[in-house]
Amino acid sequence: MIVILKHGVKEEKKEQLINWLKTLHLGVHISDGSFQTVLGLIGDTSHVDIDLIASLEIVDSVKRVSEPFKCCNRKFHPEDTIVEVGDVKIGSGNFCMIAGPCSVESEEQIVSIAKSVKEAGANILRGGAFKPRTSPYDFQGMQADGIELLKIARQETGLPIVTEIMGIKHLSLFEDVDIIQVGARNMQNFDLLKELGRLRKPILLKRGLANTLKELLMSAEYIMAGGNEQVILCERGIRTFDDYTRNTLDLAAVPMLRELTHLPIIVDPSHATGIARLVPPMALSGAACGADGLIIEVHNDPMHALCDGAQSLRPEEYAVLAHKVRQIREVINA
Amino acid sequence: MIVILKHGVKEEKKEQLINWLKTLHLGVHISDGSFQTVLGLIGDTSHVDIDLIASLEIVDSVKRVSEPFKCCNRKFHPEDTIVEVGDVKIGSGNFCMIAGPCSVESEEQIVSIAKSVKEAGANILRGGAFKPRTSPYDFQGMQADGIELLKIARQETGLPIVTEIMGIKHLSLFEDVDIIQVGARNMQNFDLLKELGRLRKPILLKRGLANTLKELLMSAEYIMAGGNEQVILCERGIRTFDDYTRNTLDLAAVPMLRELTHLPIIVDPSHATGIARLVPPMALSGAACGADGLIIEVHNDPMHALCDGAQSLRPEEYAVLAHKVRQIREVINA
Amino acid sequence: MIVILKHGVKEEKKEQLINWLKTLHLGVHISDGSFQTVLGLIGDTSHVDIDLIASLEIVDSVKRVSEPFKCCNRKFHPEDTIVEVGDVKIGSGNFCMIAGPCSVESEEQIVSIAKSVKEAGANILRGGAFKPRTSPYDFQGMQADGIELLKIARQETGLPIVTEIMGIKHLSLFEDVDIIQVGARNMQNFDLLKELGRLRKPILLKRGLANTLKELLMSAEYIMAGGNEQVILCERGIRTFDDYTRNTLDLAAVPMLRELTHLPIIVDPSHATGIARLVPPMALSGAACGADGLIIEVHNDPMHALCDGAQSLRPEEYAVLAHKVRQIREVINA
Amino acid sequence: MIVILKHGVKEEKKEQLINWLKTLHLGVHISDGSFQTVLGLIGDTSHVDIDLIASLEIVDSVKRVSEPFKCCNRKFHPEDTIVEVGDVKIGSGNFCMIAGPCSVESEEQIVSIAKSVKEAGANILRGGAFKPRTSPYDFQGMQADGIELLKIARQETGLPIVTEIMGIKHLSLFEDVDIIQVGARNMQNFDLLKELGRLRKPILLKRGLANTLKELLMSAEYIMAGGNEQVILCERGIRTFDDYTRNTLDLAAVPMLRELTHLPIIVDPSHATGIARLVPPMALSGAACGADGLIIEVHNDPMHALCDGAQSLRPEEYAVLAHKVRQIREVINA
Repeated sequence: MIVILKHGVKEEKKEQLINWLKTLHLGVHISDGSFQTVLGLIGDTSHVDIDLIASLEIVDSVKRVSEPFKCCNRKFHPEDTIVEVGDVKIGSGNFCMIAGPCSVESEEQIVSIAKSVKEAGANILRGGAFKPRTSPYDFQGMQADGIELLKIARQETGLPIVTEIMGIKHLSLFEDVDIIQVGARNMQNFDLLKELGRLRKPILLKRGLANTLKELLMSAEYIMAGGNEQVILCERGIRTFDDYTRNTLDLAAVPMLRELTHLPIIVDPSHATGIARLVPPMALSGAACGADGLIIEVHNDPMHALCDGAQSLRPEEYAVLAHKVRQIREVINA
Repeated sequence: MIVILKHGVKEEKKEQLINWLKTLHLGVHISDGSFQTVLGLIGDTSHVDIDLIASLEIVDSVKRVSEPFKCCNRKFHPEDTIVEVGDVKIGSGNFCMIAGPCSVESEEQIVSIAKSVKEAGANILRGGAFKPRTSPYDFQGMQADGIELLKIARQETGLPIVTEIMGIKHLSLFEDVDIIQVGARNMQNFDLLKELGRLRKPILLKRGLANTLKELLMSAEYIMAGGNEQVILCERGIRTFDDYTRNTLDLAAVPMLRELTHLPIIVDPSHATGIARLVPPMALSGAACGADGLIIEVHNDPMHALCDGAQSLRPEEYAVLAHKVRQIREVINA
Repeated sequence: MIVILKHGVKEEKKEQLINWLKTLHLGVHISDGSFQTVLGLIGDTSHVDIDLIASLEIVDSVKRVSEPFKCCNRKFHPEDTIVEVGDVKIGSGNFCMIAGPCSVESEEQIVSIAKSVKEAGANILRGGAFKPRTSPYDFQGMQADGIELLKIARQETGLPIVTEIMGIKHLSLFEDVDIIQVGARNMQNFDLLKELGRLRKPILLKRGLANTLKELLMSAEYIMAGGNEQVILCERGIRTFDDYTRNTLDLAAVPMLRELTHLPIIVDPSHATGIARLVPPMALSGAACGADGLIIEVHNDPMHALCDGAQSLRPEEYAVLAHKVRQIREVINA
Repeated sequence: MIVILKHGVKEEKKEQLINWLKTLHLGVHISDGSFQTVLGLIGDTSHVDIDLIASLEIVDSVKRVSEPFKCCNRKFHPEDTIVEVGDVKIGSGNFCMIAGPCSVESEEQIVSIAKSVKEAGANILRGGAFKPRTSPYDFQGMQADGIELLKIARQETGLPIVTEIMGIKHLSLFEDVDIIQVGARNMQNFDLLKELGRLRKPILLKRGLANTLKELLMSAEYIMAGGNEQVILCERGIRTFDDYTRNTLDLAAVPMLRELTHLPIIVDPSHATGIARLVPPMALSGAACGADGLIIEVHNDPMHALCDGAQSLRPEEYAVLAHKVRQIREVINA
């Protein structure tokens, strides 16, 4: 950690600070410049409150030298992590195509969509059973029944299933789910993350609407610190001033995260845009910048979907898209 | 709900849409303009998926006429709500001064701060027992023990206590807490909100870092829909591109929320700025724009605070500030 | 224009508003709903102050039915515009590859880069002569001399040239420039836009860092209203809370603008990310979502570039990228 | 400047970088930590491209130690600057009340408003002659005629006048204007700033919608580097995701700028909120956090104002507000 002192600081105040830093069991390396003094703190600074030091009257600014994330840090784990779900691999060149409806609505619906997305090239089935809705008056999902129907669809098609968890109290219902999804609004629900860290099951962690890449990695760290190393990161759009699309898909996050972490990174163009006709171009862009997979909403009857029909593709549209995605992957991997 | 169709839409497609809307049990009022057709939907549109309609090829845009929040809507409840905690009233001219340390650290610490903030003019004590930290390696709070120490401080001073809950599983520990706080990161933890709606106890609901006023009100609605009408809203800064302060305190939210809802609205200048020396000016601004209270971090030894010392005032600074706040209140209420 | 009145508005106030609207030469269509009254304004509403009406006490909200942009609106001009610069066409399936250094630094530099980007597949040369710099103490570009050197590079390679204008007073220097660029910071320099509207020369208009798509189109409208219809739009990143990249490249703007306007839309991955190693993935993403071209910084010696070397590719990196871009274009056009 | 190298960098690469830095005439102080190497660059780093260094493969991050702004930096000029306009002083405890209509519309209008705002307590008159409008089809202001009418109003009332300039070509029209305003959209119109730096006349510089405090100070620096030291900064709201108000007024900028610079700082609550009824609470908040003045839109007939009537107060409302502002100033200065 580097502490830059303000110009013209009194010697006495400087010594006071240095002595206090030493009580924190840190070595202090002093570098007096012509204009400013810089302190280099040596030792374990992970418990030092950077904001507190920055707030001191004699301090100009503080900079952390080492990143606070460890388990997910590529520096300490250079090889890509590969998450495995049955026969499906995700990461390190293994691309996943996750597809399915926003909400599970009936056995007929989920089974028929599962079959058509499998035929179109998907290798994992998604479907919402518990739905986080802004309004308490909106449809909240089929809940436990929805998970049962997903399992039926899995049996019928062989596709592993991924579905969102909204709170610890439902954890037992997810025992037989292949990948547990943490939604954007729960990315910093630390109590939930800790519990998921106790499992040995893949977690799909979506980036929050106003969260930095570092915060996303720190949330992955919560899960991994508990011993669960199978985390998949997902970029799904951030909140900006822009009002033509629901969120702004931040695709540069994909190559940037690739440098910072060894975890697989996928892209969700459906929730990012909220508009079905923008999903194919954004899915192709996601593949082109090197994502490890795409999670896309597909519905056989978007006009009657109980939730988020606005952003769902029809199976035949998904099939065309999936074909182009494969071709783009060939181009960038050539 | 108003649906504006695109220019030059085919009669056949228009009829198809109108017929579909009628299957949703809505009346449809058609207004053919010289350039565009506008449909007015009559009836209960609260279950209509506005995004789905907006996504249809023939639709230009859609606008909801009535707000989706009801219990907290001033339209249906014109009088200010007054939340009562023991002798302390909040709202409708009753101003609350909530103060205390970021984290409870020891009995001596919390009791001594409680006494000094009471003397300085505070009427509610705050203190963190469960701490939401970005990093799993940071101090997570004294948890159950911290709540016990808060109760001791309450006994010593008579101040009601407010502290943050992080998940449903700790709910029983909060039985004897006077006000339960929902932090910014949990503003859309809907499972938690629903549980809090079952209580009959004041909830202090903080605005999320990237949440609109409407979303804040919808989260209050989750609590109120369960029958718990004692909700206090709190503006605590939003996330913007600005990098000099931790967050951007959005004070215009105070008079704007005043129009939209009857609930009390308070301001947290400590978390908004993250810098102790900016807290007094922002607290005065908060009082000047008509907030119903202020929640401020006070610590007797900010240099050694285990968490967020950077934004804490010392008791003597708080006393000076509290005096000025009272004077500003006199000016604006004159 | 649709005006939605508040619930329970007095008949007298409503009539007052309607009468006032009629003095603005507008027809008013009244639709009394069970809960709210909606007024439809008929006639030329382009001069009506939407904010003023929205601010009236009895008004809940106002919505414009027709977009305020006309010349660039696809509704009134369904065919794609093709901008022509010498032999190079841009738009409607014609893809442009604009490349060159951030700043022109010397004849040797610009000629040698021009040759190598041409060989790598670029068909237009970029190079900054006037540089908008945040600091008055930073290098401000070679100015008039820089433009002369660009012309030499054009003569040597046959590549048309594009360079940025910073103010009206330099307009005469740009007479022999093929495409004049308006930078992000000048997107709403309306005086400059009006002057450029008097020319009959292609304008490359970059989106401002905090500007909506509508504002970008309104700025294009300023140029086109003057009679200059050769405008190329450029997405180059917006400012968000995100701090890992310089700006957030908003690629969904490309397909969204495609619907709204007939003008060509290109992408600038260099300024958006500010980091050379993120340029190739973002360039590929830009091609994959259907942009009409890419503008990319290339420098033969990024380490010694006088400006923005951080985001420049070397010619050999650009050649590899250009090849992949062509392949991606084949995939999406198949 | 501090350069932090990545973990495990090869000795050879490190030496290459150090040698290159020395060719830039910089001293390099090397500090080898247990985990990372930190280089301290000594000498004039104002011409060093921080982004270029940050982009190098072996570099983790770079931090500037000294701020790039000098003339406006409080470090080098600890006393508050006082801007004088006739008898009116701004800064260092001198509070200015700038008021007037959004646009000058007629002699009668501007003279009558000038008289009433003077009576209500204003000491400077504002009025737009050149209007930056998003749409080319909107009213663009009375231009030269508007400035003449402002002068008449000044003659009638004695109030100094402030009005906005939109481009260099109108500079001669502003010779007899007391304070020249640079609007938010022109904050980084560097050509304009340079010209204004040649004048010896107060400049009111508004913060851009997406500009950081540092960028605002760098724009002031453009003016001051030319020798014009009479710059007044103005916070007028930034663009965020929030959609209830036009912009988000960032009041913490006031005390933050106070620390960074000696220039006066005023607040514009009218443009920040865009809603007349939010102007009084935000004006009071601006006074409460220590601003040096307020610029507020006042119109005698907001319903018929040609521009921005939505955010204008009536003179009688302004008088009430001005009285409370004075009282708040007494409280905070006590």
